[in-house]
Amino acid sequence: MKVLVLGAAGMVGRKLVARLMEERQIEGRQISALTLADVVEPSIEGSRIPYTLVAADLSADGAAESLIADRPDLIFHLAAIVSGEAEADFEKGYRINLDGTRYLFEAIRRASQAAPYCPRVVFTSSIAVFGEPLPAVIGDHHEHTPLTSYGTQKAIGELLLADYSRRGFFDGVGIRLPTIAVRPGKPNKAASGFFSGIIREPLAGLEAVLPVEDSVRHWFASPRAAVGFLMHAAAMDTGLLGNQRNLSMPGLAVTVGEQIAALERVAGPKAVALIRRDPDAVIAGIVAGWPKAFEAKRARALGFAGDTSFDAIIEIHIEDELGGHIAK
Amino acid sequence: MKVLVLGAAGMVGRKLVARLMEERQIEGRQISALTLADVVEPSIEGSRIPYTLVAADLSADGAAESLIADRPDLIFHLAAIVSGEAEADFEKGYRINLDGTRYLFEAIRRASQAAPYCPRVVFTSSIAVFGEPLPAVIGDHHEHTPLTSYGTQKAIGELLLADYSRRGFFDGVGIRLPTIAVRPGKPNKAASGFFSGIIREPLAGLEAVLPVEDSVRHWFASPRAAVGFLMHAAAMDTGLLGNQRNLSMPGLAVTVGEQIAALERVAGPKAVALIRRDPDAVIAGIVAGWPKAFEAKRARALGFAGDTSFDAIIEIHIEDELGGHIAK
Repeated sequence: MKVLVLGAAGMVGRKLVARLMEERQIEGRQISALTLADVVEPSIEGSRIPYTLVAADLSADGAAESLIADRPDLIFHLAAIVSGEAEADFEKGYRINLDGTRYLFEAIRRASQAAPYCPRVVFTSSIAVFGEPLPAVIGDHHEHTPLTSYGTQKAIGELLLADYSRRGFFDGVGIRLPTIAVRPGKPNKAASGFFSGIIREPLAGLEAVLPVEDSVRHWFASPRAAVGFLMHAAAMDTGLLGNQRNLSMPGLAVTVGEQIAALERVAGPKAVALIRRDPDAVIAGIVAGWPKAFEAKRARALGFAGDTSFDAIIEIHIEDELGGHIAK
Repeated sequence: MKVLVLGAAGMVGRKLVARLMEERQIEGRQISALTLADVVEPSIEGSRIPYTLVAADLSADGAAESLIADRPDLIFHLAAIVSGEAEADFEKGYRINLDGTRYLFEAIRRASQAAPYCPRVVFTSSIAVFGEPLPAVIGDHHEHTPLTSYGTQKAIGELLLADYSRRGFFDGVGIRLPTIAVRPGKPNKAASGFFSGIIREPLAGLEAVLPVEDSVRHWFASPRAAVGFLMHAAAMDTGLLGNQRNLSMPGLAVTVGEQIAALERVAGPKAVALIRRDPDAVIAGIVAGWPKAFEAKRARALGFAGDTSFDAIIEIHIEDELGGHIAK
């Protein structure tokens, strides 16, 4: 089968590509060709399957048509600009996250009208589709009232995915990813950055700032679990979805205090001592409006499996990012 | 104040225009100019306020910019192609119902960036945004899983309305209209047509076909109530909405049997005898997937007032469409 990954240079995209190159198949169907696209050409280190690298902006004229010209059987659509950028640049956010997605879906529809074609499309949505009013635990049938343009664009993408799938233009699955932790790389300015920072930095022997109370609760998945969700969405029986093509993924609901306790169990008190509490009312205010936990019953019933504990999430980071070693 | 009505030639549009021309003000603010637009030029009989008629397709290049060039203070956006047509012609549905709406919102945004401008925008959404799985009574925070392209386009319109309002580009209110009954005019091919037909035709001394069981329950508003919702949305304090700009309107949940009982009370057994039962499994199947009732608590708390009984809905039809007379 031919596989196309859009957004292949992003953090989740790179980990998905590594997994595809390692497994070389999806549910027993061999991957014959892999096309990896992003706005900057993705870099690849060694591969056992043929691949093509493409630098393309999905929102540019004709880009979507070119990307699906060889009729991939499976398309992972992870391409998006992030929440902060979509909020800062309204036009760019709508162009990349809404128009780009619609151009892709339209290109597939037109191809499907020209000759029989119905690829699996796996779309990464986000818990940012949810906003006020939020119950303590969000059920599988809760309304979408996003509080950001990014969340709005993702919610629209979900609606389009469901309608195009209902019409038979493609076979879509939308997955709402939890916040990814532990996010590898450098600290960034995202309001959610500390959720990963308070684990990643101490494990590297560095100080981390914690701007909120220990009681703050949030919804997490490891990068490895996120890739697992994508792989399962690519292989699952979509007949079980009916017309409800979008699913909240099973994350872990954990408080900051529970994160820190897990860090202590995995890496000891010296790591925990590197967390510096520096309350920030602005960040605390932003985070207060975020989802805390989900039921995710449908996704679990459909075979999506999340992380088992925050201890396990930390161990995944140590294995996958630190070569198994914690800074002494 | 300057008022623009998009979709002014439609059934609800015409009734709204008549009400605006009669009242000549919105909550004490005089209407100085009224622009009435539709794809065909609306026809008007007598008016006590200055008005302009415009034939324009909102989805055409530059049309939205022209329509808001004189910066209306209040915009009613009722323009849409109906569910059946949007389902039959995929591209046209998305062009008119999604692109048209987005072009309008974008034209307002650009005008608001050029010089301070923040009009009230009243958008008619639909209960078609709701689909499987449906509870018996739909709460105010139920998810949108539309089962038609029309419902998808309306759900996207709601999301855009909320985001553009949150950003301060305009001051939007989206109202999900119940099924309108009694719909004036000739019988049509809409699957919902019989809900009005079984009242309208007998009142005119004509036979009507009933294709479903008496136990079928649905959600109704009279044309007069629908116009009342629009007028209230134009005048209300939107500060009370927060970021949740879209509301399910308070309709009446009534079974077909209750409709018929109301017809008998208002017009006697002779009218009821004109209803011919002719079960149609296809129509029954379509209608089975439709919403039956809503809580509509938020809208009621915000002052939206629906019809008081189905008897009253029938009497409104007799007053407004039949000059007070029932066929003998």
